[in-house]
Amino acid sequence: MPTDAGESVKVLDETTCLELLSDHDLGRVAFANGRFPMVLPVNYTCFDGLVVFRTDVGVKLENIAMSPVAFEIDGVTPTHAWSVVVLGHAREVTTALGPRYDGLREAQIHVLAPGTKTHWIAIEVYEMSGRSFPTARHQHAAPVVPPQT
Amino acid sequence: MPTDAGESVKVLDETTCLELLSDHDLGRVAFANGRFPMVLPVNYTCFDGLVVFRTDVGVKLENIAMSPVAFEIDGVTPTHAWSVVVLGHAREVTTALGPRYDGLREAQIHVLAPGTKTHWIAIEVYEMSGRSFPTARHQHAAPVVPPQT
Repeated sequence: MPTDAGESVKVLDETTCLELLSDHDLGRVAFANGRFPMVLPVNYTCFDGLVVFRTDVGVKLENIAMSPVAFEIDGVTPTHAWSVVVLGHAREVTTALGPRYDGLREAQIHVLAPGTKTHWIAIEVYEMSGRSFPTARHQHAAPVVPPQT
Repeated sequence: MPTDAGESVKVLDETTCLELLSDHDLGRVAFANGRFPMVLPVNYTCFDGLVVFRTDVGVKLENIAMSPVAFEIDGVTPTHAWSVVVLGHAREVTTALGPRYDGLREAQIHVLAPGTKTHWIAIEVYEMSGRSFPTARHQHAAPVVPPQT
């Protein structure tokens, strides 16, 4: 799992990651976008092992189709903070053929943002990871690191 | 602003973006990381026009220093959803010289994650954008798009 691990960080197994993905509907998708990467929030759902979201014509659609992406959700509870990161390949499946995609396009996605969002993007999961840790806030000042002279 | 715009999307001005950045402390940083992009949550603070966070040795430190990154925060209120995206260049400033960086390293960052996080990363803002929209949930089924045969 890609993390700067601390002693009390718990690595989440794939079952837990999938449960968290299924229990939420707001994530962020990161992708290459010219000089800078981009990361944008999206409402999503999980369907048959895919992370699925809808979009209008725009930066996501232009850059994501057939691209490697990272997708992230996170949360803070009274006792823990957690996050799940999915790496995968995104592609537009708006007109993809077959029962899997027919079913996918019947999935309900609770889209907060306005716009018709007629384009369906599916992320085929390559790797999934997650972590959680207790949320005792560490408000310590930083250790003093003397400038290297 | 990079958005799949809908009619009721409000573009946030820079002052509002900065206020939102100052009012929150949990964001996500996206960066290139080999075959896939990566996006990870971080606690941050704003200092003198920089987005600042701390990290331990790990994937963020290895990939972010001197790199273009995207940084995102978002939120959902009872009436609106909003997000702010910062594009910029990240660099490690753990031992950077000068009053700006001395002050930066005295900033309090409310770090949820365990670990000493002795490395300071600052994102120099190249571009900042934000949007908000009302959160009347659009739970419509997707428009039916017939397969192209």
